[in-house]
Parts: sequence; structure tokens; C-alpha cells
Amino acid sequence: MPKIAERGVIMPASPIRKLAPYAEDAKRRGLKVYHLNIGQPDIATPQVAIDAVRHISDRVFEYSHSAGIESYRRKLLGYYRGLGIELTADDLLITVGGSEAIFMAMTVCLNPGDEILVPEPFYANYNGFAAEAEVVIRPVKSTIENDFALPPMAEFEKLLTPRTKAIFICNPNNPTGYLYSKEELGQLRDIVKKHNLYLFSDEVYREFCYDGHKQFSVLRLEGVEDNVVMIDSVSKRYSMCGVRLGTLVSRNKKVIAAALKMAQARLSPPYLAQVAAEAALDTPQSYFDEVHDEYARRRNCIVGALNRIAGVYCPMPKGAFYATVKLPIDDCERFAQWLLEEFSFEGQTVMVSPATGFYATEGLGRDEVRIAYVINQHDLLAAARCLEEALKIYPGRTNK
Amino acid sequence: MPKIAERGVIMPASPIRKLAPYAEDAKRRGLKVYHLNIGQPDIATPQVAIDAVRHISDRVFEYSHSAGIESYRRKLLGYYRGLGIELTADDLLITVGGSEAIFMAMTVCLNPGDEILVPEPFYANYNGFAAEAEVVIRPVKSTIENDFALPPMAEFEKLLTPRTKAIFICNPNNPTGYLYSKEELGQLRDIVKKHNLYLFSDEVYREFCYDGHKQFSVLRLEGVEDNVVMIDSVSKRYSMCGVRLGTLVSRNKKVIAAALKMAQARLSPPYLAQVAAEAALDTPQSYFDEVHDEYARRRNCIVGALNRIAGVYCPMPKGAFYATVKLPIDDCERFAQWLLEEFSFEGQTVMVSPATGFYATEGLGRDEVRIAYVINQHDLLAAARCLEEALKIYPGRTNK
Repeated sequence: MPKIAERGVIMPASPIRKLAPYAEDAKRRGLKVYHLNIGQPDIATPQVAIDAVRHISDRVFEYSHSAGIESYRRKLLGYYRGLGIELTADDLLITVGGSEAIFMAMTVCLNPGDEILVPEPFYANYNGFAAEAEVVIRPVKSTIENDFALPPMAEFEKLLTPRTKAIFICNPNNPTGYLYSKEELGQLRDIVKKHNLYLFSDEVYREFCYDGHKQFSVLRLEGVEDNVVMIDSVSKRYSMCGVRLGTLVSRNKKVIAAALKMAQARLSPPYLAQVAAEAALDTPQSYFDEVHDEYARRRNCIVGALNRIAGVYCPMPKGAFYATVKLPIDDCERFAQWLLEEFSFEGQTVMVSPATGFYATEGLGRDEVRIAYVINQHDLLAAARCLEEALKIYPGRTNK
Repeated sequence: MPKIAERGVIMPASPIRKLAPYAEDAKRRGLKVYHLNIGQPDIATPQVAIDAVRHISDRVFEYSHSAGIESYRRKLLGYYRGLGIELTADDLLITVGGSEAIFMAMTVCLNPGDEILVPEPFYANYNGFAAEAEVVIRPVKSTIENDFALPPMAEFEKLLTPRTKAIFICNPNNPTGYLYSKEELGQLRDIVKKHNLYLFSDEVYREFCYDGHKQFSVLRLEGVEDNVVMIDSVSKRYSMCGVRLGTLVSRNKKVIAAALKMAQARLSPPYLAQVAAEAALDTPQSYFDEVHDEYARRRNCIVGALNRIAGVYCPMPKGAFYATVKLPIDDCERFAQWLLEEFSFEGQTVMVSPATGFYATEGLGRDEVRIAYVINQHDLLAAARCLEEALKIYPGRTNK
């Protein structure tokens, strides 16, 4: 048998996948499992997008332009203009989800062995793309005590080497829900300018900000136009994760030109997804208002309930629909498995994401879990109640 | 400005892209341009697939399973069974076009710097994926004099090094239209077994075979089950290139397990595409019969017309919808550009793909072009007539 490549072996598996069989088992045993682990919202896709797909009138589902359908790219310019971001259609490349945009950014901006600084905890799949692109992620620790604010620039500078080529943030943040302030982004602007780095920013949760906060895009930072590469996606904005459509945005012509060559090799982004996404740009504001209010209520409900549990601390997220929560436990992976395998409360249990999967530094996040508030309030409260009961009897509880 | 990565610079651009502006110019000047250069068929997508999309009834376009929707994978098993290939759903992974399947195969089976032997000429985008995967393509020359048959095994063995990990074929072949015989595939089986190599086979043109020939899949080769990785796609089979859906197939569990980790990082293949493709599996046989007959007529029409032109040789393709044609010219890139820039016949001209883009060996294919017969017979004949007239006056004609 021919050998598998080393990189095929070391490619990280998503930590949550290990838990999936235990969740299936729990369901087979008749338990109701509340999924606080997933990023698949239950929010309806905008009707205008669904209708566009239903009214498709093509005779042939043809290749589209490798950079995406031109009318879609042009219409996207209006969306970005509404955010105070002036772009031309040449600054955009339509990708297969935000995922492809991340991989393209890593591949065209970094050579194998080059390094990216990423505040941790971070979205676990960055590890997968880094492995594919053969680049190295150097984590910069943010802490729950500080509500996961941007680490001081001195911490970034400590890690700089001649191979450091980029800083990569997610804003609003998955898995912490943190929203970087304009001041923090200004600090990032200064450091990438000073050290001639790329600034990658994953902004797919832009629409989900609370308490009157607004996301400030890296594309609005002045003086670093050639450094900034923004990753976007329609997945969360329009609750259409399954269509797989994203955008790579940069005013750096060389970045887009190199990414376009990658795009040409894979021919085109998915056509039907583009039909849905182009139509989704006409989604009425009322849709976003309703979704915002729903998530805000859910956030208040789950964060409030968690913070009322003895020994639990959940920072109030300002964006996205995640929170990273500190629990009085020895080991989040053990706890998450125990919840599914051994615990139940009134026929129910909870699935959470162990935070260790979001940290690159070994040993960090062992007493934290990520929750997503993408289920309804009733279920969120029931899930919180389960966690409360579970923590009373979990054998690995720390501060009893 | 931060530097672009070296691999972003060296990533090969598709050779045909250089010609696109000349084609646009020609159209602006009022010329009718016959596109013999493209692989986008004009054949209608099966109605059953279009209807499935039009009748979609989801409330949310959700993520699907990273390996693809299970019902689709299960239904695909029946399709393969019809070809004499017994598989289980675990042997399949649904990909974003055949493109992603190629990239995954290269990434999980080869380490950076490892080598793949590929008969040339070959599909130019293999170069792009090889560059992304940091693997090296070593071409093995096939010749038009031999109608692009599989080169002798001795030619493959000459190129073997300790870094050689795979042989990669496309069957039926793009760009030559050659269909490998069972005997040739047996030779490949022996060599991959002897040297413990992977055998990658791109079989996306399987449905397009003529003169009663049938494609023989590498998945039917015995004794090399762990060596074989097959790349498939719905793009050509159902004339739905734009949906971007393919399949990676291997009975080697380690290959699929490693590819699944890559698949999990990018979350899922496009959902709407899977809806179309699952429905397309119910396409009636009459559709394929009609498409086959139409392509067979087109093939006979264009190949006949080309071979009637003095100094031109076009082997009769047994599969796909391409032919690589020998012309009495000095340089196919110059000729292709000249056709668009300087030539016209009765207000018409032709766009062809320079064959040099399909050869990895510098200097090969300079007097060859690839044509695709994906336009109607009337236009094919008009295009052939244009070529005939063009060759009479092309300044770089060789044998006058």
C-alpha cells in the first residue's frame, strides 16, 4: 500500500468531531441533546434568496467567471459602500465560502514555513488551512479575565521573526464574541505598517453586533491598503451556510492577481450559490433588525443564565453568536464527553465545544468551553439548567 | 508593501487567458468568433436537475455533511454499480468540483517536493493544483503520431525517482480525446503495483465515448485497490459545469480519512449543487443517448473537415469532446493570437487553444492546437472553413 503523505496524517481533525459519536449515542439512548456546539443558525434564509433559486430559468448551469459573476461583484460594491468601504470590482474575488478565501490569502501571501500571528483562542479550522498551505500559526494569548480583548502589541512583537508575514484576526470573533474596537484596530494598523506585514481579517460575523456597537472593518484603516486582506462570507449574514460562497477582498493588486490564478485553476465559484447571494443583497433591513433582536435576546438570556451559575464566568459578547465560558472543571474535553456519555437531567443533556480546540498553546483553555446561541431561548435556558445540574455532580469539578 | 509569496508569483496562469482580450477585441471589431477553445458545452442540463432546484423547499440553506449529503452518496453507489464498480458510501467524498478532488488527492497522497508522472499533453490546470500542493509534475511524452496512446512503461520507469509517488492519467483524455484501453490500464496497474505508487485517474468524461467504445475505470483494476484514486465530476456528465460538484473515490481508507479532514476544514460541498446532482442521477437514458449522438456527429463533422485541409492531421478521438490537432504552423500561440488579431474570413474567425499550454516540456506542441467540439455542427464547419482559409495566408505556415 502506498504511504499517505505526512501532511495528510498531521492535518488536524476538528476537535468537535471526536464528540459527534457520543452525541449520536446519547440520542439513541433517548436523550434530548441541546446543541450549544454548532455554528449552524436556525434563522431562516431570506425569502428573496430562496425565491431567486426557485425561479431560476437557465437552460444550462454554466461556469461563471473565475472571480465570480460580474453583476454580483458589482452589486457587492454597493453593500460595502453602505459600510463606508469604497472598492472597485477588481478588489473582489468570489470564493467557495470564506474557507477558500482564507486558504487563498495564506497561499498567495505566505511561502511554506512563513508565520502568521493569531490571537488565541481562534477558529479551529484556521489550523487546517495553515496545514494545507504549509504555513505556521503562532498564537498570541488573549484571556478571559480581560474578556478576550486584543493582546498588547508588545506580545505580538515578542513573537516576530524574519518569517512572520501576517497577523490574522477574526472580528467579531469566533469563538469569543469579542468585537475589536477602532482603537485596537489602530494598533494593528500601526504594527503591520511598521513591520510590513499583511493584516488578514475574517469579518463574516459583521452583521451580528449588539448594544449599539458597529463593526469597524480593516478595509477602513488608512495607510495600510496594500497590507489588508479581508475575508467575507454570505454564510452567517444570510443564514445560508450551505451554499458555500465567500469573498476575498484586497486593494493590493498583486494579492488579487495571484489569487485569481488559483481561482482560474478551480474554474469558478458555485453558480447557484451566486444566484442566491446576488438576490440576498436585496434582503430588506427588517430581516436584519429581526435577526439582530433575536440574537440579542438569546445572548442576554444564555449569558445571564450562565453567569448565575456558581463558579461560571461568561464575558458579555459584543458580536457574533458565540461565547467562550469559564467553568469550574478540570478538563473541557473530558467534561464535554461526560455530558454526553454519563450525564442526564430530566432526559436532557448538552453538547458544548471544548475550548482547547480553539487554542494552539498546549494546556490553555482546559477550563473553558465555547457555546453558540443559535437555538431558541427556551432551549438555551433548558441547556443552561442542564449545565448547572451537571456542574453540581461532575466528578472533575474544581472549586467545590 | 508586503511581498507576495513566491508561489503566488509562479502559480501558472491558464494560457488561454492571455488570448481572451484578443477575442474580446475581435468581437468589438464586429467579427463572429467561433469558440473551439472552451470546455463549456452548449448541451442542456437535464430537466430533472433544473426542476429539483426550482422546487427546493428549504427554510434554511444549511451546511451539509463535510463528505456530502448521505442520500446523494448512497444514490451515487447505484450509478457506479451500473458501471461494474462496487463501492461503499465510505469510499466516496463529495468535492467542490473535480478540481477539489484533484487538489485533495495531491495533498493527502504526496508531500511537498514529491513527484507525479503525467502523460503529456495534459489538462493545464493540473499545473495549478500541483503548484498549490507544492508537488512536482514530471511529464511523460505521448505523441500525435501515435494518436496519443499511453507511452511505453519504460518511459515511465526512466523517470522514477525515490520521490515519485503517483501516476496521473485523464481517461477519456483532455486535451487529446484518447481513450485508454483495458490493456493500457493493465500496464498501469502492473507498474503502480511494482513500484508502490498511487494511480490517480480523472474520469470526468466517462460518458463521452464513441464508436461503441466504453470507458474502463481504474476502480475495476484488481490488486491495486489501495493505489487507485479516482476523480469524478458532474460538470460534463450532466452539462452543469457551474454547480461545482465532484467526487473523490478511493478504497484506500487512509486516503479518504485524510481527505475528510481537509473536507471538514472547508465545512461542506455546495448544498444547492448537491440537490441538482442528486436529482440528475434520475436523468433518463434517452438524454445520454441524444447527447452521445450529438457529440458523435460533431466529432465526425469537425475531424473530417480538419483532415481534409492540406497539411492538417487530427487523430480520431475515441472519447471526451476534444481533439489535439497538428497544423502546418510555426507557433500555436502566435497562430492563435494572429487568428484573433489579424485574420478574418467573411467576417468570422476562430479561437483555438494553443497546445503548448498542455505540455510541460518546453518546446513540445508548438505545431498543435486543442479544439473542443462543444458548438453546433454548422458553426463547427464554419470554424473549419476559417482555419482552412487562415492556413493559406498565415505568415508562419511551415510546409507551403
